[in-house]
Amino acid sequence: MVLSEREEAVFEGGIKLGGIYHQFIGTPVSRRSRASLEAAIEEAVKNQPFVEDARVKIDERFFDRIGNEFDYLSLTGKMLDVRVTVRVGGTRCVCRMEYREEMDYPLMYVEEIESLGENRE
Amino acid sequence: MVLSEREEAVFEGGIKLGGIYHQFIGTPVSRRSRASLEAAIEEAVKNQPFVEDARVKIDERFFDRIGNEFDYLSLTGKMLDVRVTVRVGGTRCVCRMEYREEMDYPLMYVEEIESLGENRE
Amino acid sequence: MVLSEREEAVFEGGIKLGGIYHQFIGTPVSRRSRASLEAAIEEAVKNQPFVEDARVKIDERFFDRIGNEFDYLSLTGKMLDVRVTVRVGGTRCVCRMEYREEMDYPLMYVEEIESLGENRE
Amino acid sequence: MVLSEREEAVFEGGIKLGGIYHQFIGTPVSRRSRASLEAAIEEAVKNQPFVEDARVKIDERFFDRIGNEFDYLSLTGKMLDVRVTVRVGGTRCVCRMEYREEMDYPLMYVEEIESLGENRE
Repeated sequence: MVLSEREEAVFEGGIKLGGIYHQFIGTPVSRRSRASLEAAIEEAVKNQPFVEDARVKIDERFFDRIGNEFDYLSLTGKMLDVRVTVRVGGTRCVCRMEYREEMDYPLMYVEEIESLGENRE
Repeated sequence: MVLSEREEAVFEGGIKLGGIYHQFIGTPVSRRSRASLEAAIEEAVKNQPFVEDARVKIDERFFDRIGNEFDYLSLTGKMLDVRVTVRVGGTRCVCRMEYREEMDYPLMYVEEIESLGENRE
Repeated sequence: MVLSEREEAVFEGGIKLGGIYHQFIGTPVSRRSRASLEAAIEEAVKNQPFVEDARVKIDERFFDRIGNEFDYLSLTGKMLDVRVTVRVGGTRCVCRMEYREEMDYPLMYVEEIESLGENRE
Repeated sequence: MVLSEREEAVFEGGIKLGGIYHQFIGTPVSRRSRASLEAAIEEAVKNQPFVEDARVKIDERFFDRIGNEFDYLSLTGKMLDVRVTVRVGGTRCVCRMEYREEMDYPLMYVEEIESLGENRE
């Protein structure tokens, strides 16, 4: 199958976002452990092909309203904000996962895509 | 961000493949339970947006050579063959995950992409 | 380490409950796909050592109140009711995972434990 | 159900080991990202009830023999060595997950259990 660089880039970005969600949802997380989980997700994703950068943010506000006595939560899509930057040849795209309150859904989308004006490596 | 239908379709397909791998790898599976896991993965993925069809095959040959005494294995990428058909507007693509012996890698790729000659719904 | 049969049985039961939660939380599930996921979890767990039986129930009521437009949910601990029966020698225990509203927590506990009056096999 | 402190402690330890395995197996990991994943697993587990300590080691030797071109691996049970220390009342136990070559199996077992000579808190 012949895909354009843009198509390959967004395909690879989709793989990474779907993978992050389904690998890490359910992990026990607290105000104290949040930073280590963000770092581990970022470092894990940076191992994968075509990834230039990854930024993961777990929304701290969820730890203000823990309903149980145990002072931690299972990670959910509501808490996650992720940006993965993928580069295929001369095309770079930024893929994003972000919880959308009005949709009640952790939306995954392509935030930016640009041609770097270079030949494919 | 304005994406073409083809770009949207492969992005969505990537999300599904990455999600399947990272959700289900590690599941205990045996010759006996294989079919129920294949069915559950297929049904799970068909819930997701833009998915028209999903086919999952867990390679039975792995159950011939179980090294442990327990007669089951943890699901790995080597055992999985997946086809997810995604439709966005008038574009349909088939995304595939397949273990490639020569790469020692569960490759994810776009197997087919076609325009159905219809307007975007 | 020398453990009693009861201790071994509840240790094994704990492993299975912890495993179910962290393997399957996040799976896309709907009214339509629920039964296939329940069956796959049950069959997966029955592969594991010392498991005599497993029953998994995903609470249908959650599908009455889906807030998003996509008509499916990510599996959470709130939706799960699990019973795993473990047997070690002459001891059988039933381990349970059940969401407790008042605790806002998917509680895991030993529901029953009995000696079958037999020697250890 | 009335359990002894020892029984409760090993049940809780089993939950944690089963959870670690099924949450994190499949995570992309490399020589570079290993330490961040070890730290994140430890911090995640320490959030859970009754956990006093957690130590996670991902075996570096696996990164010497990566068969693919991508210089990372999916985390498997072969690579993991885990110790979780659980305390219930006056009983402390150390639960371990360790890959056993001769069994080809990531064995989970109770490594130590001791009474601290204290009343239950």
